[in-house]
Amino acid sequence: MTADTGADYPAENDAEYLVEPLLAEVEALDELILAAIRRRTALARQLGRTMIGPGRTVSSRSQQHRELAVLRRFAEFDQEGRTLAMVLLRLGRGRPGPAP
Amino acid sequence: MTADTGADYPAENDAEYLVEPLLAEVEALDELILAAIRRRTALARQLGRTMIGPGRTVSSRSQQHRELAVLRRFAEFDQEGRTLAMVLLRLGRGRPGPAP
Repeated sequence: MTADTGADYPAENDAEYLVEPLLAEVEALDELILAAIRRRTALARQLGRTMIGPGRTVSSRSQQHRELAVLRRFAEFDQEGRTLAMVLLRLGRGRPGPAP
Repeated sequence: MTADTGADYPAENDAEYLVEPLLAEVEALDELILAAIRRRTALARQLGRTMIGPGRTVSSRSQQHRELAVLRRFAEFDQEGRTLAMVLLRLGRGRPGPAP
């Protein structure tokens, strides 16, 4: 579809024509976010298993420190960042969501 | 800190020693997720401006289609995926969260 021939110009209006490259990048970013969350979830669950193995105890205080660090990391997005961080923490604990 | 010399072995127990590389990767993934969400948010807001420019109308139906596609993309994480998708959509619309 090229703008200069005019003939191929989208029937509706040029908005669709302009948005397509933006939409494609948003979709690619979503895939990247999904892949990172899949990997993060698997790692966090592995962490959980590692920390409660035989003869191993990691203090709940250090666990709390780590979770607060995640909340701080996402704080730039205010309440939405808090919601994001809580989702990542729950996924990592193995609550709702697919097995790794 | 090496396991074989024993002397450097962490006082608490070996859990902290084992988890450090996992924690470092989780942190790196969080940074990657944050950067992708920052970029996605900026793009989605640019999309919004593009779609409602002078003489441009993109049907709300196609807008709904796009939002449903985002929900489907994150469906692998069940309810947590839905929460994630809704956060990304709200950030993209410019509701709570930093300006792009």
